[in-house]
Amino acid sequence: MANGVQLSKMVSLNMNVRGMGQSATLAINEISKKLLQEKKAVYRLGLGQSPFPVPVPVVDALKANADKKDYLSPKGLPELKESIADFHHRKDGISVHPENVMIGPGSKELMFILQLVYYGEILIPSPCWVSYIPQARIIGRQVQIIPTSYENRWKLTAEDLDRFCYDEHDTYRPRILILNYPANPDGCTYRDSQLKEIAEVAKKYRMILLSDEIYGQLHHRGDHVSVARYYPEGTILSSGISKWCGAGGWRLGTFSFPPDLDWLLEAIAAVASETFTSVSAPIQHAAVQAFRNDQRIERYLWHARRILARLGTECHAMLAESGIRVWPPEGGFYLFPDFSPYRERLAKRGITDAEQLCERLLMETGVAILPGTAFARPEDELTARMAYVDFGGAKTLTASETIPLEAALPDDFTSRNCSHMLKAVEIMVEWIIK
Amino acid sequence: MANGVQLSKMVSLNMNVRGMGQSATLAINEISKKLLQEKKAVYRLGLGQSPFPVPVPVVDALKANADKKDYLSPKGLPELKESIADFHHRKDGISVHPENVMIGPGSKELMFILQLVYYGEILIPSPCWVSYIPQARIIGRQVQIIPTSYENRWKLTAEDLDRFCYDEHDTYRPRILILNYPANPDGCTYRDSQLKEIAEVAKKYRMILLSDEIYGQLHHRGDHVSVARYYPEGTILSSGISKWCGAGGWRLGTFSFPPDLDWLLEAIAAVASETFTSVSAPIQHAAVQAFRNDQRIERYLWHARRILARLGTECHAMLAESGIRVWPPEGGFYLFPDFSPYRERLAKRGITDAEQLCERLLMETGVAILPGTAFARPEDELTARMAYVDFGGAKTLTASETIPLEAALPDDFTSRNCSHMLKAVEIMVEWIIK
Repeated sequence: MANGVQLSKMVSLNMNVRGMGQSATLAINEISKKLLQEKKAVYRLGLGQSPFPVPVPVVDALKANADKKDYLSPKGLPELKESIADFHHRKDGISVHPENVMIGPGSKELMFILQLVYYGEILIPSPCWVSYIPQARIIGRQVQIIPTSYENRWKLTAEDLDRFCYDEHDTYRPRILILNYPANPDGCTYRDSQLKEIAEVAKKYRMILLSDEIYGQLHHRGDHVSVARYYPEGTILSSGISKWCGAGGWRLGTFSFPPDLDWLLEAIAAVASETFTSVSAPIQHAAVQAFRNDQRIERYLWHARRILARLGTECHAMLAESGIRVWPPEGGFYLFPDFSPYRERLAKRGITDAEQLCERLLMETGVAILPGTAFARPEDELTARMAYVDFGGAKTLTASETIPLEAALPDDFTSRNCSHMLKAVEIMVEWIIK
Repeated sequence: MANGVQLSKMVSLNMNVRGMGQSATLAINEISKKLLQEKKAVYRLGLGQSPFPVPVPVVDALKANADKKDYLSPKGLPELKESIADFHHRKDGISVHPENVMIGPGSKELMFILQLVYYGEILIPSPCWVSYIPQARIIGRQVQIIPTSYENRWKLTAEDLDRFCYDEHDTYRPRILILNYPANPDGCTYRDSQLKEIAEVAKKYRMILLSDEIYGQLHHRGDHVSVARYYPEGTILSSGISKWCGAGGWRLGTFSFPPDLDWLLEAIAAVASETFTSVSAPIQHAAVQAFRNDQRIERYLWHARRILARLGTECHAMLAESGIRVWPPEGGFYLFPDFSPYRERLAKRGITDAEQLCERLLMETGVAILPGTAFARPEDELTARMAYVDFGGAKTLTASETIPLEAALPDDFTSRNCSHMLKAVEIMVEWIIK
């Protein structure tokens, strides 16, 4: 007869998931929590969570819709889909039909289902967001990584894309290229001309673009442009409320499809109806407010951008002045420093790759950042992602709101409101160059 | 060069999902909506949604937590996991450690991920819930159906299970058996002695039980017993707030694992961290209240049970008195009539299977029910699922609350509060026997 011990020996797992841990960003967060429990100072620059609260009108909308209990359609609440279509029209100058919008419990889940239902190749420029590759692994697929370089601001060039496709000797191979800008992990975004060139190559090979614009509204100057402007018929526009709306924990992401890709939308909706069913009803009803044209939310965004631009610029300066290679941020809340100018000095301390660097840094200083390997960079490259989000978002937002948007923030704004964050960069730089 | 038309011709889908529609219950719901838009009377006995509102203390808890915005751990909010462990201890007499609880956006999503990560055979007695089999199809797996019979109240017998396993000539084949009781689609539940016998067979073959007890708290007499009492070391207990708590649209389900199956929990959490990330934070914070020992929720449950028991019994009587084969309900809100006594009469009207029957019934009378085929019954069997939920749950609950729980509901209770529902059964019976 079986007993507990025997059952526990009968581990029977799909080979695709054996040995998989939690996603790298979440794992670092758990280690940080542990250090905190031990009363050690921790600087949480690992997890990419917006520091700002959810805007008041959106929180109020959730309260007002707390009694909504019906199962919603797998594609989403019609009113929300309209609100999102209007949002993309207003913000991005893109024409989206509400019928072509799909709501998911985070755009991460939608990307997973997209990878699951699509039969074709997924192309991803590296560095890239942490979850694309483990998702492919779970499903038993391979993704094709197209490396970018520091010199090109970690951006894919149209030439590299063209060469990659040409070299495959299979012109109309089914392909989805994932673009993400302003980018996680590097904070840089594409120039308008670059988007046009990439769109041309995409058209040439008839590939689908999945344009992950979750940080679009956090472009520091409010100048975000979507590649869908240049390739509307082949671009799926991905967005959500996790970043610009501070609601990462709410879990709501959106895909907007061009009409000709309705077959993909329908397949994703079919899988949705057998898995997550629909996104939480009170959350969907509340999100309608987030995507609406609301002056209060616009002001919130301008304050958030102003704070992130200032803080990002200062963090960048501290790193750059110490000789660390890093691009100034243009959107979102990440920097992607390359510590290779200190390679020899670090090697003398027994640090030869980014994972060692991040582990030692966290253990020795309490500063949590994520190694470049988590973003599909080579193992021996000394890159890491730093999220400049460890400050009191609510307090800092309130402080900014007392200063007119047309005025500049005072010189001591960050030292008064984000001192913990500045301290973290100071500690990190000292530790690197010592 | 490519254009929109060419892109649209390049449909490239995973063969596992080609041709998949939305889940059967949701599809019927969409047709019903269409009839409603055409101003036709519709009786929505298709979708299995609780008619009752979310209890007030739980709605209030969501309002109080509307500003919660952090990403939570993929396994779930620690406070909620404690509340759930306590719930199963209190309600089911089962010892669950909070560390062994996993929260998902609906237990449906958790079941999908379980099927995805597990390497082994999934056994399902039929009739069964609609989504188990499409889930397997999406992943490219096969499930093994073990048929049950009307004579056995649509319940799996220990003998049938034993014979099935014996015939596979592979004693310790990795297997998960899914049990669901009180059952969707038939409203019947297992006797205590049956659970003990099934537990013995499960132990003998060292199989895992996934015990889907989402309707447990809607056992009409409040007498639900979990099979985990008899096989604690091998049972995953599945529950959630969709049915007994009226919060289907909120999307929160739970799996409670025995300690020895931690390898399955960890694999599911790893996939969760790459897909849905975590369940919506405000929803998790609110759900803590749902699983707590709260007299207001207990009273809500007793009223809900009393109403469902009465209405289910009356609907059953109307069907049975017309010669339709159907078991009286014991829990939840479904009946699973077998119309075969009218097979010849129906055949003369050109109706020879359950799908034709349901389609014609919906078109000709506006009564929506789901064919047995959606629950893995044979195509030529004349069974269907009827959800007796098309009545004003809030109003009926309020009416019940004016009558002491120790008293019986008055004879005219359903005709006064659930007349639309009774009308639907009347219409259906007339249409069947005409």
